[in-house]
Amino acid sequence: MAIDRTTQAELIRVAHVLADAARPVTLQYFRNNNLVAQNKDADGFDPVTAADKAAEQAMRAILARERPNDGILGEEFGTQEGTSGLTWVLDPIDGTRGYISGTPTWGVLIAVSDATGPLFGIIDQPYIGERFVGGFGLSELTGPQGVRPLGCRAVSQLGQATVLSTFPEIGSTAEMHAFRAVAGQARLTRYGMDCYGYALLAAGQIDLVIEAGLNAYDIQAPIAVIEAAGGVVTDWAGRSAHQGGRALAAANADIHAAALSILRDAMDG
Amino acid sequence: MAIDRTTQAELIRVAHVLADAARPVTLQYFRNNNLVAQNKDADGFDPVTAADKAAEQAMRAILARERPNDGILGEEFGTQEGTSGLTWVLDPIDGTRGYISGTPTWGVLIAVSDATGPLFGIIDQPYIGERFVGGFGLSELTGPQGVRPLGCRAVSQLGQATVLSTFPEIGSTAEMHAFRAVAGQARLTRYGMDCYGYALLAAGQIDLVIEAGLNAYDIQAPIAVIEAAGGVVTDWAGRSAHQGGRALAAANADIHAAALSILRDAMDG
Repeated sequence: MAIDRTTQAELIRVAHVLADAARPVTLQYFRNNNLVAQNKDADGFDPVTAADKAAEQAMRAILARERPNDGILGEEFGTQEGTSGLTWVLDPIDGTRGYISGTPTWGVLIAVSDATGPLFGIIDQPYIGERFVGGFGLSELTGPQGVRPLGCRAVSQLGQATVLSTFPEIGSTAEMHAFRAVAGQARLTRYGMDCYGYALLAAGQIDLVIEAGLNAYDIQAPIAVIEAAGGVVTDWAGRSAHQGGRALAAANADIHAAALSILRDAMDG
Repeated sequence: MAIDRTTQAELIRVAHVLADAARPVTLQYFRNNNLVAQNKDADGFDPVTAADKAAEQAMRAILARERPNDGILGEEFGTQEGTSGLTWVLDPIDGTRGYISGTPTWGVLIAVSDATGPLFGIIDQPYIGERFVGGFGLSELTGPQGVRPLGCRAVSQLGQATVLSTFPEIGSTAEMHAFRAVAGQARLTRYGMDCYGYALLAAGQIDLVIEAGLNAYDIQAPIAVIEAAGGVVTDWAGRSAHQGGRALAAANADIHAAALSILRDAMDG
């Protein structure tokens, strides 16, 4: 849908208000050794913290007041239909395992999307005080070193690339092997960054993030931030990654094509 | 050696001066996309950056002025013998792979040691502005949330523990299998934090850090910070880890014993 400049500015403003509201809530519980992590997945380990729920509630309360006609898709409290054609996609704490381990690479993910996908997104890291923003003509980081432009880098050869994923297991055995087929050709492979990996890609520090098993709220803000910085995000078949699943985020079309070809071959094999 | 309170205070002061000096130098090159990483290890990938060398030079210049009789062991410029019985052990950028990937979990490591091992240490993260300190009666973090006491946590069962290592490969195949024997019993395993993992252990956020292939300058500052916070650091046979090699850092004696038993059995098998 076409969105006029006034509405764009309003959406940007509200997105920052949401991120500002989530910061103190998430920090209140961060590295709080009395934090009780509930276990919502009996098969694995997917902790839901009080912070996760409280931060999403704080953001939903703002949207109810500021954008009552927009829809909401949030990790903790599900979908609320809207009438405007716009949906706010919220992950109050992406990287809960990193969060409960005290690492500073979890983030608050906020995207505003229409039927075509995310239009504007924020990856916010409250502890460091970093905010990565992309969409509506903006692509910038505000952090400890002030405001800096974001921009993906131009590395086009896998042999020169840094590849990142959160877990070395990636997902299924087939997904792990496909990831390793790419990583095996890369210069450097790193793990453990959660959503911060997508932010580093937009900041021109790494070249590929490859993950599987994502939800829409894990990937929509990263898509907006990375596309605004010149990068490319698809699934492992080159289609839209808006709904989650397998994501291939790349700094440019060349390195995207190189990785995609390997992932496709591996998943077909 | 016995060190009086006045000398302790002087050593603490100089350690902070060193860390303060390393901050701007390391930050000048951090996320600088013109950074040229030289490759000092033709077999693998061990980048040495201009920042690494410049930061160590800045610290050595201070020691030449402030502590001319102390020895120095630094990553980049080797050993300088002293006459005082004290040695400064410096790693200007621990986690160079993380540094060149833009992650905020590298650190400046500073320890002052005598023949018995590290007496006082600092793990400094310049980008976040966090300084983890331990020794001479001090155990504290200064960071975005002000000054807070450090303290390892009391988790005594492996099934409740969070285990961390920088690379899933760990080291040799035998070392990797030994690590996995421990990690397989843990609640949660995370990768990718470099020296920041030791800092998180001292801050009571995780329970075990298990690594191999370390140098003395990688582990002496972490040992000081962790021991001051109540933790235990040894090699995988329960002996001193001061000289590097395989390190097992644990939040308390119980979880240390549980992990050590598994590592010993695995390395003997």
